[in-house]
Amino acid sequence: MSALRFPNLPPSEPQGCDLLAQERAKTTFSVNDLSVYLYGEEHLDRQQKFLELIENEPAFDKSDRYFLGRTERFAAALKKDHALVKLSQEQKWTPEEFTQADLLIDTPGPFGLHRGMFMPTLASQGNEEQQEKFLKPALRYEIIGCYAQTELGHGSNVQGIETTATYIPETNEFEIHTPTLTACKWWIGGLGKAANHAVVMARLITAGKDHGPHAFVVPIRSMEDHTLLPGVMAGDIGPKFGYNTTDNGTIWFDHYRVPHISLLAKYSSVKPGSGEYVKPPNAKLSYGTMVLVRATLVGYARIALSKAATIAVRYSAVRQQFVDKDSPKKVNGKIIETPVLDYSMQQYRLFPIIAAAYACHFTSKEMMRLYYLNIKNMASGNFSLLADVHASSSGLKSLTTTIATASIEECRRACGGHGFSSFSGLPLMLQDYSPNVTWEGDNYMITQQTGRYLFKSFRELVAKRSSGKFSASSITNPTLAYLNTYLDNPNLKCPATTPAQFHNPEIQLAAYGHRAAHLVSEIVHALDVEKRSWNSMLVDIYNASVAHCELILVQNFILGIRGDMPQPEGISAPVLSPAAKEALTDLSDLFALHMIHKQPGQFLASGYVDAKQVSMMGKAIMDVMENKIRPNAIGFVDAFAHPDYYLNSALGRFDGKVYEAYTEMATREPINQTEVIEGYEKYIKPFTNPEGKKGKTIQARL
Amino acid sequence: MSALRFPNLPPSEPQGCDLLAQERAKTTFSVNDLSVYLYGEEHLDRQQKFLELIENEPAFDKSDRYFLGRTERFAAALKKDHALVKLSQEQKWTPEEFTQADLLIDTPGPFGLHRGMFMPTLASQGNEEQQEKFLKPALRYEIIGCYAQTELGHGSNVQGIETTATYIPETNEFEIHTPTLTACKWWIGGLGKAANHAVVMARLITAGKDHGPHAFVVPIRSMEDHTLLPGVMAGDIGPKFGYNTTDNGTIWFDHYRVPHISLLAKYSSVKPGSGEYVKPPNAKLSYGTMVLVRATLVGYARIALSKAATIAVRYSAVRQQFVDKDSPKKVNGKIIETPVLDYSMQQYRLFPIIAAAYACHFTSKEMMRLYYLNIKNMASGNFSLLADVHASSSGLKSLTTTIATASIEECRRACGGHGFSSFSGLPLMLQDYSPNVTWEGDNYMITQQTGRYLFKSFRELVAKRSSGKFSASSITNPTLAYLNTYLDNPNLKCPATTPAQFHNPEIQLAAYGHRAAHLVSEIVHALDVEKRSWNSMLVDIYNASVAHCELILVQNFILGIRGDMPQPEGISAPVLSPAAKEALTDLSDLFALHMIHKQPGQFLASGYVDAKQVSMMGKAIMDVMENKIRPNAIGFVDAFAHPDYYLNSALGRFDGKVYEAYTEMATREPINQTEVIEGYEKYIKPFTNPEGKKGKTIQARL
Repeated sequence: MSALRFPNLPPSEPQGCDLLAQERAKTTFSVNDLSVYLYGEEHLDRQQKFLELIENEPAFDKSDRYFLGRTERFAAALKKDHALVKLSQEQKWTPEEFTQADLLIDTPGPFGLHRGMFMPTLASQGNEEQQEKFLKPALRYEIIGCYAQTELGHGSNVQGIETTATYIPETNEFEIHTPTLTACKWWIGGLGKAANHAVVMARLITAGKDHGPHAFVVPIRSMEDHTLLPGVMAGDIGPKFGYNTTDNGTIWFDHYRVPHISLLAKYSSVKPGSGEYVKPPNAKLSYGTMVLVRATLVGYARIALSKAATIAVRYSAVRQQFVDKDSPKKVNGKIIETPVLDYSMQQYRLFPIIAAAYACHFTSKEMMRLYYLNIKNMASGNFSLLADVHASSSGLKSLTTTIATASIEECRRACGGHGFSSFSGLPLMLQDYSPNVTWEGDNYMITQQTGRYLFKSFRELVAKRSSGKFSASSITNPTLAYLNTYLDNPNLKCPATTPAQFHNPEIQLAAYGHRAAHLVSEIVHALDVEKRSWNSMLVDIYNASVAHCELILVQNFILGIRGDMPQPEGISAPVLSPAAKEALTDLSDLFALHMIHKQPGQFLASGYVDAKQVSMMGKAIMDVMENKIRPNAIGFVDAFAHPDYYLNSALGRFDGKVYEAYTEMATREPINQTEVIEGYEKYIKPFTNPEGKKGKTIQARL
Repeated sequence: MSALRFPNLPPSEPQGCDLLAQERAKTTFSVNDLSVYLYGEEHLDRQQKFLELIENEPAFDKSDRYFLGRTERFAAALKKDHALVKLSQEQKWTPEEFTQADLLIDTPGPFGLHRGMFMPTLASQGNEEQQEKFLKPALRYEIIGCYAQTELGHGSNVQGIETTATYIPETNEFEIHTPTLTACKWWIGGLGKAANHAVVMARLITAGKDHGPHAFVVPIRSMEDHTLLPGVMAGDIGPKFGYNTTDNGTIWFDHYRVPHISLLAKYSSVKPGSGEYVKPPNAKLSYGTMVLVRATLVGYARIALSKAATIAVRYSAVRQQFVDKDSPKKVNGKIIETPVLDYSMQQYRLFPIIAAAYACHFTSKEMMRLYYLNIKNMASGNFSLLADVHASSSGLKSLTTTIATASIEECRRACGGHGFSSFSGLPLMLQDYSPNVTWEGDNYMITQQTGRYLFKSFRELVAKRSSGKFSASSITNPTLAYLNTYLDNPNLKCPATTPAQFHNPEIQLAAYGHRAAHLVSEIVHALDVEKRSWNSMLVDIYNASVAHCELILVQNFILGIRGDMPQPEGISAPVLSPAAKEALTDLSDLFALHMIHKQPGQFLASGYVDAKQVSMMGKAIMDVMENKIRPNAIGFVDAFAHPDYYLNSALGRFDGKVYEAYTEMATREPINQTEVIEGYEKYIKPFTNPEGKKGKTIQARL
């Protein structure tokens, strides 16, 4: 039993549960209707079903999560991954159902990359024989794999990896080898301790010729007893900022021989014996998968944003601090301190995060639709969507994961001191979410892909416009559309003269389009006319990608509310109630205007708006936050439908019993299990009572 | 012995040590001279001496730091605090020397608040008898104390705390009591397990009258055996984002009686028997201490910035990625990948952080000088400096700790994936530094203090100017000076027409002064003329405080280089070599121009600069970064003189042997101590080899 016991007293009045009840009574729309609009009934029902299966199962218990050290957390994650696979086999879950359950448990475990990268790589790059031999047992977890690409010395520059796989015609084998210390594979999730196979990216060398990185599937640990196979050395890379429940690993190979079937050969292959290299067809095909991964990450950004916002917004409605002298709050005639959510600064910090979550929701939906449409198009040889979708997905991955990471931290700080406590749920969330800004393309680096596409589009459009054969009505691509509008009138001015006019979505879209096109135009001028180097323009290129993607987010938010967002084939558009539509429109306005108001520089420089208009936007924002969004704030976060089990936060509880939960969690802190700390005799007593005086002798001194 | 062994191979060429040697050969100034200019010889000699004393002492060893869980880390910190006190007693260190040694060890321990808050409070608020009774044994660590102010429900609003201390005339005692759950003290460093006394802030109640929060020194744990005293319940508040080596604690009191001497009575007191309350004199006196604490935090921001920058800049000189096609690097005629420090984006991310460290260095020096000058002035009844110094110190605490936290994270990400590894040193640094944005005044909230002063100054100045009795030459206060310049000509335009002209410090200062004054003027108009509420203006007020404090940072950087910064009395100005002065001027230019270029909105809105000029600044920045700062980047961070023991980072090593150190650290990861993880039998084998097949039987399957 804990040596720490709290008094049997309630928190000071008013109680958190009463405050949240009042908030919920103010909501102008049906929270459940909005949840259904976002996720669909089926998803919500399944969440409820999974919650019942999972919540009380010891392997999925979260109550000790914040107390465990790395070794214990990894052990618990291995146990959880085992239990979840067993459960999924019993329940016959689809991969989508598995993911939904796994997200609720919210612990990245050692089998995560087996599902996330190993099996998908086998499926997309393995030939039939390889799928039979490797993928089938992998689906049954007889083979547990990982994806070994990054090396100690090479991450972003995949083409620069050093590990080699040399074809040996005599034995029809490949010899995998690590030539330098920097060639050791590094960061490989699941490799440290769990995996018995790896997909290894290595430079394929046949007859002395280097064909660059190719994927090989290789056994690394004994199927008998899990020991490392001869010629392989592997282990865990140690503690990290987050993701400590996953065994990110390192591996190196000492002239390690694998059979010919190891080279994943759906697209490129080596002819047995002769060693002749067969090239892959269109390299563009692999871009499709990248789009899918990035759309998924935009969806995860929505989850992170909505989770952090739920915690911070609920706690801000419960936490009171100071009396606002200009408009003091009263309950039963008695002045109370003001809930911090009533302070305009708190609203300015938190409400745009709620809005960003919705923007990411609609954007990830649209990215998924485009992904499937593009896949279908490509199958019939139509690559028209690919470049735009790929470029936007790079920039959107970068922008949304940057926003989400910053927002988790903002939510953490907006909880005051208590956001620093692990029990708020926000520190671990920040730590586990953080790799998103680096993996799947470093957030600065990959914006160059977006930039390259924007500049190419701009140059081609300018050429077409001056060719005499141009017709604006032929433009279907949204990027070309806003670039063309800009070229029609680079000096366009915003017509708004009152704060209210900034609620017009056409004005919002024009501001974002004009600013993005202006940046693109300036950069193309610098590169092509001033002949500045690409390297010297990287900051501007990053800004152009951000501008392009902020426009997409604003656009998808607007379309997502209108309900006229294009739907995947065969799926009918969900219906949004008029009350919820009105409420979401407030959020959409805030989303568009807040980003301009907070960082107006590029908008001002584009010439579309002036300083007076930015100041008017400030008034529009303050007005919509105080009068429209504030009453619905709790409704907006409730609609995300994150159960308490998922949040695992004392501050973000649905019932508002913040302080009761928080103090209860503290009693479970391991060092509270004894009243006197173990180190007392050795490290404190020698100062405070060196002679071991007893009773009154020593107490009397003070 | 670790089950993980790395190959006996060097990293790929070129080697990190060679790259750093080349960098150092390019430095245009003497690194040692610059270090001496920053810290003085005495400080540097002492650092060397302390390093020798500390580095090889087991209690101060850092090699296991990143592997330990919270319980073990706290135990190690208690051991360290004990050993450091013993050492300081042997060495007869002054408090300043103690702090310097403690900073090198860089582990906030359970005795930290005893030194940082408990003893200073006794010294400043205790009368002579109390100093004799409590402070003297505290200096010998017979009493170990903490400072219990914050409660579960009240942090920022100290006036709202709920704990009461009721005077009982019959026994001449105070009864300390916790009336609600939210009144439990919370976050109290050192209270969780270590302290046997506490300074408790409680509402003093005499004869039914509430006199608000007062400080009481109370025993909480037995001097005999460290058990909690009857009527007191205390413990640790559990795991946190950082600071897990400190036992932040909670305490509550059940009608706990303490003697009359417990009320710290230097300023206010209660007459024994009658219970008559004696008011404190001028409340302003306590503002002085706040200025000191905040100046110290600005100094710590410098330490954090310089430490993070050292790691990221050194690693960015060693880490190579991609070949820059426009200007490929060669070594011995062979093209190598480009060190990431050569990419303009990396420079734009990291060089302003180096610059910010220097700006904070000079600013904290100047704040210290003003603190002592103000103390001297106040002693002779002169309060003329107090308001300005107090207001600026609030805003500077907020601004510099916000910059430092963001910069640690930026440095972490700028190390690519490896910044996510604990071995980079950056994750723990971020976690332990983070409370700075919340404690000693939440970074958003306290800017209201700065704002209030700025608006008051502006109103008074406007009134004076229109009174007819105004002479500009009478202005000595720097805030009034820039406000007055603005009022002289609110439509002033920047005269620069070329990028080079922005290197003129007068233009830089004018831009910052004009922007800050413009914001102040707009807010005063909104409050006084448009009658907008204070709450509705909080975002603008925050921006005004930032603008004011950015001006101060720019100003102090410029003065700090010129060598004409005012010196504390009796201290002669240190001398900066011409080469170092030139190099620091480049950094100062970058500091001033980068902030405008990155967030130009308010500068544009103020009318002082236009978009074309901001674009010119961009060119000036890119030029100074590539041609001036890049060659000196390693010199600038070396001059911070942070030893490897302090950095505790595989990436930031002085010798550049990054990958050797990094892999060596991984071998020490606890889960690498056995080849096969403990959970294998239970959680992996049931999938991979459920029937326990042996040897060829199972290997043959693949």
